[in-house]
Amino acid sequence: MNVLVVYAHPEPKSFNGAMRDLAVRVLGGMGHDVNVSDLYALDFKATADAEDFGTLANPDFFKVQAEQSAAAARGMDFAPDIRHQLDLLLAADLLILQFPLWWFGLPAILKGWVDRVFAAGVTYGGDVGWFSKGRFRGRRAMVAMTTGGGADSFAADGLSGALDVVLWPIQNGMLNFVGFDVLPPYIAYSPARVDAAARAALLADYEARLRAVETTPPLRFHPLEDFDGRRLKPGVAPLTVGQGLPPRGS
Amino acid sequence: MNVLVVYAHPEPKSFNGAMRDLAVRVLGGMGHDVNVSDLYALDFKATADAEDFGTLANPDFFKVQAEQSAAAARGMDFAPDIRHQLDLLLAADLLILQFPLWWFGLPAILKGWVDRVFAAGVTYGGDVGWFSKGRFRGRRAMVAMTTGGGADSFAADGLSGALDVVLWPIQNGMLNFVGFDVLPPYIAYSPARVDAAARAALLADYEARLRAVETTPPLRFHPLEDFDGRRLKPGVAPLTVGQGLPPRGS
Repeated sequence: MNVLVVYAHPEPKSFNGAMRDLAVRVLGGMGHDVNVSDLYALDFKATADAEDFGTLANPDFFKVQAEQSAAAARGMDFAPDIRHQLDLLLAADLLILQFPLWWFGLPAILKGWVDRVFAAGVTYGGDVGWFSKGRFRGRRAMVAMTTGGGADSFAADGLSGALDVVLWPIQNGMLNFVGFDVLPPYIAYSPARVDAAARAALLADYEARLRAVETTPPLRFHPLEDFDGRRLKPGVAPLTVGQGLPPRGS
Repeated sequence: MNVLVVYAHPEPKSFNGAMRDLAVRVLGGMGHDVNVSDLYALDFKATADAEDFGTLANPDFFKVQAEQSAAAARGMDFAPDIRHQLDLLLAADLLILQFPLWWFGLPAILKGWVDRVFAAGVTYGGDVGWFSKGRFRGRRAMVAMTTGGGADSFAADGLSGALDVVLWPIQNGMLNFVGFDVLPPYIAYSPARVDAAARAALLADYEARLRAVETTPPLRFHPLEDFDGRRLKPGVAPLTVGQGLPPRGS
């Protein structure tokens, strides 16, 4: 497999850095080609704006998605940093988003990678399709993250709410949206608050997940065939959201 | 009231721009003091990094939240752009986040505003408290956003999922987390796909919401008293998440 790890942490010595290094070593050792987009090291531009395009289709009214589609139609007329990330993304059989959960979401530098690189006309929209008919159907993606709070907080009756709700925008709104099979997330809870042995155990768990990455069953989302327009067909029971996700490692 | 509108759209002539202008005019006309943080116009730095601080408490291991707490303890030793935004935020009785929903979340420039300005040691953490005992308790906050997709997609049986799930990270993870009373969101669905009369109707609906902003009942979240540690006390029924939010305007 060709693997892309998009990694967003400002401190190379962090636990996120250790998870990135582990993924490179383990997946590389399995014979996969592993690329890392280290967004902080790249000083990756987070903000989508007019500089993202070679020329503007409509200089009088700037709309990101319209300019993305127009740039795609002009033969990928994107800024060089976007073109490079798109080359990596389009080649990837497995995408891993590696980050610390900040404010229940992606660090801005990684959200900006999605805003800019998941470009309309390339990753979705028009003839490209979306969801189960999306460009990345048949490929795999996975969240690998750390939290400040503990696992007990991420539950339907927990302070943070159910994990599948917290991750819905990332897992459904980004990864499933463009067609990836979304694997259960790997979450290292509170690595900064546990001792070295517990951190080593977290890394061992992550290694087991990485070794099983080609065979792990993905999370279930509704395929497009379940919908009539934007709503589920009568008789199709909606996915349960808000009850959490399968336990780690399952 | 002192009002802060944090506005994130790259095109001043956009519908988001019209919503911002309406908020300034209507709330100003009601006698409130209205400030706008126009993040694109400010070229606001989205990425949290070491440049955010006057000096580093730990130059050998950079951890954003630890440096934020240390900077707060040194007398608000933050970069000038963060200090300025914190002055506006700490003075606000009402915070409005005005943005287009991109990838089920905040545009990166606005996520970066939260990452950098909702600083540990100032807006939460340590002695500051959080959730119902958070720094902003008794104050109000509100999402005002546009979508590409239509309202029918944002439902428990819709393609995008229930609106309260999509907005959970923003409404619970950011606004409720620091103690705000979170008002029902105002959502302009698909303004780019409707005619001028329908856009005018959306703005009229938003104006009605703005005129009622001091009396609109906030969304319900569990107060800290409902929890024993990180889990709800036995007998407390969890909030229903995944069934959507009250209809617009209610």
